[in-house]
Amino acid sequence: MDARSCCSTRKPPPEAYLDRHRQRFVRELREFIRFPSVSSDPQHAADTRGCAAWLAHHLRAIGLEGVRIWRTAGHPVVCGHWLRAAGRPTVLIYGHYDVQPAGSPGEWSTPPFEPTVRGDRLYGRGAADDKGQMFTHLKAIESWLRTSGALPINVKCLLEGEEEVGSTHLAAFLAEHREAAVADAAVVSDMRIRGPDAPSLTESLRGALSLEVTVSGPQTDLHSGNFGGAIENPLQVLCAVVAGLQDRRGRIAIPGFYDRVRQLGAHARAEMAATGPSDRDILADAGTTWSWGEPGYTAYERTTVRPALTVTAIRGGHQGDGVSAIVPARASAMLDVRLAADQDPADIDRLCRRFVARIVPPSATISVRTLFSAPPVSTPRARAAVQAARAAYRAAFGRAPTFLRIGGTIPVVHLLERKLRIPTVMMGFALPDSNLHGPDENLHLPTFFRGVGTSIHFLRAMARRGAS
Amino acid sequence: MDARSCCSTRKPPPEAYLDRHRQRFVRELREFIRFPSVSSDPQHAADTRGCAAWLAHHLRAIGLEGVRIWRTAGHPVVCGHWLRAAGRPTVLIYGHYDVQPAGSPGEWSTPPFEPTVRGDRLYGRGAADDKGQMFTHLKAIESWLRTSGALPINVKCLLEGEEEVGSTHLAAFLAEHREAAVADAAVVSDMRIRGPDAPSLTESLRGALSLEVTVSGPQTDLHSGNFGGAIENPLQVLCAVVAGLQDRRGRIAIPGFYDRVRQLGAHARAEMAATGPSDRDILADAGTTWSWGEPGYTAYERTTVRPALTVTAIRGGHQGDGVSAIVPARASAMLDVRLAADQDPADIDRLCRRFVARIVPPSATISVRTLFSAPPVSTPRARAAVQAARAAYRAAFGRAPTFLRIGGTIPVVHLLERKLRIPTVMMGFALPDSNLHGPDENLHLPTFFRGVGTSIHFLRAMARRGAS
Repeated sequence: MDARSCCSTRKPPPEAYLDRHRQRFVRELREFIRFPSVSSDPQHAADTRGCAAWLAHHLRAIGLEGVRIWRTAGHPVVCGHWLRAAGRPTVLIYGHYDVQPAGSPGEWSTPPFEPTVRGDRLYGRGAADDKGQMFTHLKAIESWLRTSGALPINVKCLLEGEEEVGSTHLAAFLAEHREAAVADAAVVSDMRIRGPDAPSLTESLRGALSLEVTVSGPQTDLHSGNFGGAIENPLQVLCAVVAGLQDRRGRIAIPGFYDRVRQLGAHARAEMAATGPSDRDILADAGTTWSWGEPGYTAYERTTVRPALTVTAIRGGHQGDGVSAIVPARASAMLDVRLAADQDPADIDRLCRRFVARIVPPSATISVRTLFSAPPVSTPRARAAVQAARAAYRAAFGRAPTFLRIGGTIPVVHLLERKLRIPTVMMGFALPDSNLHGPDENLHLPTFFRGVGTSIHFLRAMARRGAS
Repeated sequence: MDARSCCSTRKPPPEAYLDRHRQRFVRELREFIRFPSVSSDPQHAADTRGCAAWLAHHLRAIGLEGVRIWRTAGHPVVCGHWLRAAGRPTVLIYGHYDVQPAGSPGEWSTPPFEPTVRGDRLYGRGAADDKGQMFTHLKAIESWLRTSGALPINVKCLLEGEEEVGSTHLAAFLAEHREAAVADAAVVSDMRIRGPDAPSLTESLRGALSLEVTVSGPQTDLHSGNFGGAIENPLQVLCAVVAGLQDRRGRIAIPGFYDRVRQLGAHARAEMAATGPSDRDILADAGTTWSWGEPGYTAYERTTVRPALTVTAIRGGHQGDGVSAIVPARASAMLDVRLAADQDPADIDRLCRRFVARIVPPSATISVRTLFSAPPVSTPRARAAVQAARAAYRAAFGRAPTFLRIGGTIPVVHLLERKLRIPTVMMGFALPDSNLHGPDENLHLPTFFRGVGTSIHFLRAMARRGAS
């Protein structure tokens, strides 16, 4: 008996079970990824239903009870639970089985829905977002139930099929089926950590406000030869509106925009500087070397605790090949505003509308449509679930996680925290180079196995700490 | 014998022939329009060839000689001539048998390629642009040859199939077949007149410079949640570039841009004010009531003798339905610069490139692609062909034409005037509401018949005046 097997045998039963079944876990995950469950594409509706059916079957196979596929007005929600730990806390595990579109197949090294292991990574659409991350919890549950015949706490699984299209029907589903979510704590694993040996717990997300600004002028497109010079061009007006929204360094020019932004104290900023990514890390991730942004802040601060306004698209004039010589009748800009702590989406929406209404000339009309909004979220470190997650990362990764702020928005966290009032912990297992939403999306398998170990320990730690 | 038939019998033989054959002329024109000769659409390549064959057959039928369909690298050129008027001048008649795409069929009252007479108009794609206008000359030739057995002068017809795609292969064709075009004067009928009872001779066209300006930043699209605030956005930069190109009244901010623009004298401006469309006319044509443009000029001047810069399209970010939360890696603007007399496209191209290069920040790269350019053109009133055209309009319309300046660009006029050095006259028969390039394109039939009469008299007048 060598030292390694000696250590292995000293592991607690669920962790030892994980070690013995790694290959099968990956095999099952590949089956899961093989479904092109692209929620935004009606052509994949049957694949998405098929994926939900596979998932429900899998929940039953690992020993969950009350497994059900709930129909919604969109894609189904898959639920299951294990509620036999009387007197113990209940944890809600949230995940989503739908995926982003694959994008251009030509940009992938192997087909997106033919999951392939190369080196220590598993490649495929959904490998990390979110099938692989969701799977860490399912395999943790299995590891407990197959070794102890029980979980140390009560568990509910809430696995939706519409996260990539804005969780459209989830709030309505939960309003009708409140019991599917009632819990002492929730865990969401749909984000990255700092690196394979640098676990991190996400403690804040930016909010989001998505606006479509449309400038309309003449009733129809006009010939730019015949009318150019005598008709104000809505697309030109739109460019002036967009150009006026911020200065050259990205400082937003809308009066009152920064009024409510929470100013971080010196201690918090020092911690961010010490534990977070450097400017160089962030620029390298972006594939550039040019530092840019609001003066007086690091790139990490600019992308997490400071708001940002991005024009993500402009639609105006002929969009195909070739040239159409027109003064376009209308033009639109899609604005993506990311909100920092204490900013209120409705408040910012109002300020944006007032600002653009003032700068548009009388020859044009401007309309603003709010497509989507979600407030910023942060999760207090002191809560029991966060402390349990810290202990779990430490146990599985051999080091304590840092706290990470991220600039993106996960609307379901807001839904869980604010609407359902369930303390939520954001426990990610993707890596910065997992290419979420991009080609060659991948799951780092050593991190996946540590993720299963983290979840195993999290359930154990929650039993010890309760949910206070 | 009533007064009407009395007058009719007093008409010269070609004009009397026109009167007798109006219905057949319209029937033949409808056959011609029935071909969907959409030059920009490869799916209509066979229709375009079929249209050329029909046209060649028709040229032979009306008595032209040497009729040939010349292959080019694109759509064919149809030529024919009648050169038996020894010692008399030769006139080149230019026209194009290709048409714009029909656009949305739902916007048409009757199908675009099922030409239909309603009231006194013939509706169909190409009815005015340019099949109907070209047909005035063919029917004039027929009217002469069927009544006198001869034309009063020599005529060459040059009928191309690529005008709507920029006359791509015409210059190369003419370099190889110079004899197809050598003439003492050329006539181009592919523009509008002021109204059914207000004939006009077009005496100037603006030039055009079509540029694509592309701003590139990060190597790939970046997630606007994760990176927004720390990465300079190429689409935002592009908006600032476009916004900076001109002031709010359309005065172009590029240094040196106006240096060479010819200033019209008080006399010419007074004539434009007296004979041209009013601000109200132009705004009504545009479907708006808001006057806009370079201060100190009328709308007619702003759209004809002053340059203009129109951003005709912006392409940046996700262009389909829905929202993609990205900082786009690149964004492009299509700029359409219309040039006034004495501006040189190459010169303006250089100024534009220098200007945008200076205002782009170091984090982005900017590239400018020239898609197309044509110098402004004007045709002196004193030339014989113009005087012959004036006499012809007066004879057919019962009133002298005014001189009209137009803001659009017809590259073939530049080719004929500057490259082939053939004095050209622009003799239009479309109306302001002929909907060229739009749905329900139409030909006003009384104006068409007057157009045939104008062409009959033009050939007669050219015989009298020569081509000096």
